[in-house]
Amino acid sequence: MHYKPGLHILSEFNSVQRDYLFSYAACEVLFNDLIDKYELTKVGEVYHDFENGGFTAVICLTESHLSIHTWPEFGLATFDIFLSNYQKNNQEKVKGLYAEVLGFFEGVERQKTELIR
Amino acid sequence: MHYKPGLHILSEFNSVQRDYLFSYAACEVLFNDLIDKYELTKVGEVYHDFENGGFTAVICLTESHLSIHTWPEFGLATFDIFLSNYQKNNQEKVKGLYAEVLGFFEGVERQKTELIR
Repeated sequence: MHYKPGLHILSEFNSVQRDYLFSYAACEVLFNDLIDKYELTKVGEVYHDFENGGFTAVICLTESHLSIHTWPEFGLATFDIFLSNYQKNNQEKVKGLYAEVLGFFEGVERQKTELIR
Repeated sequence: MHYKPGLHILSEFNSVQRDYLFSYAACEVLFNDLIDKYELTKVGEVYHDFENGGFTAVICLTESHLSIHTWPEFGLATFDIFLSNYQKNNQEKVKGLYAEVLGFFEGVERQKTELIR
């Protein structure tokens, strides 16, 4: 009963990259590249653009999930990534992947939470 | 720049309802019922059963997302729900829906985090 699933990072960040916040096209390419690079296993995904701009996406991994929701009118995104440690410790992957997402959006953190679950 | 997206509840709980943790069938029915009851709008979803038991699911909503990952061998689940307040304040829905999920699994909380994003 003492299994601790893993690290979950949740972030709200501002971005001046309005195109990247407006629709999911660039973000989808980024996420697929990162899933390959970090050797994660995707089991399904949902990407949804809103009519007036902004998008929402969740990617389901065997290791758990990542999600992003954007509000281009506020220059804002919420992002989170949670990888379980079921077969190996994935904490460094969580941190590395998050840093790359923040870098891609040139994000300025408003709030960041690291939760050991 | 002062928009606060909303409340995100993250929970790890134990459950003795092994069948409910083992595969997603019952949970999918529950989630669909709750999405109807709380008048949320689903834009896509992923449900995935693992070969040796346990499942992972993410549901993408216009209001953000919910997710669950289960480890029946540990009698454990991680659940999270995040609803944005874009068009109205959804904090009570987050709390109500979480309480119903916990009740369904007869869950005993190991850790619960309420994060205002």
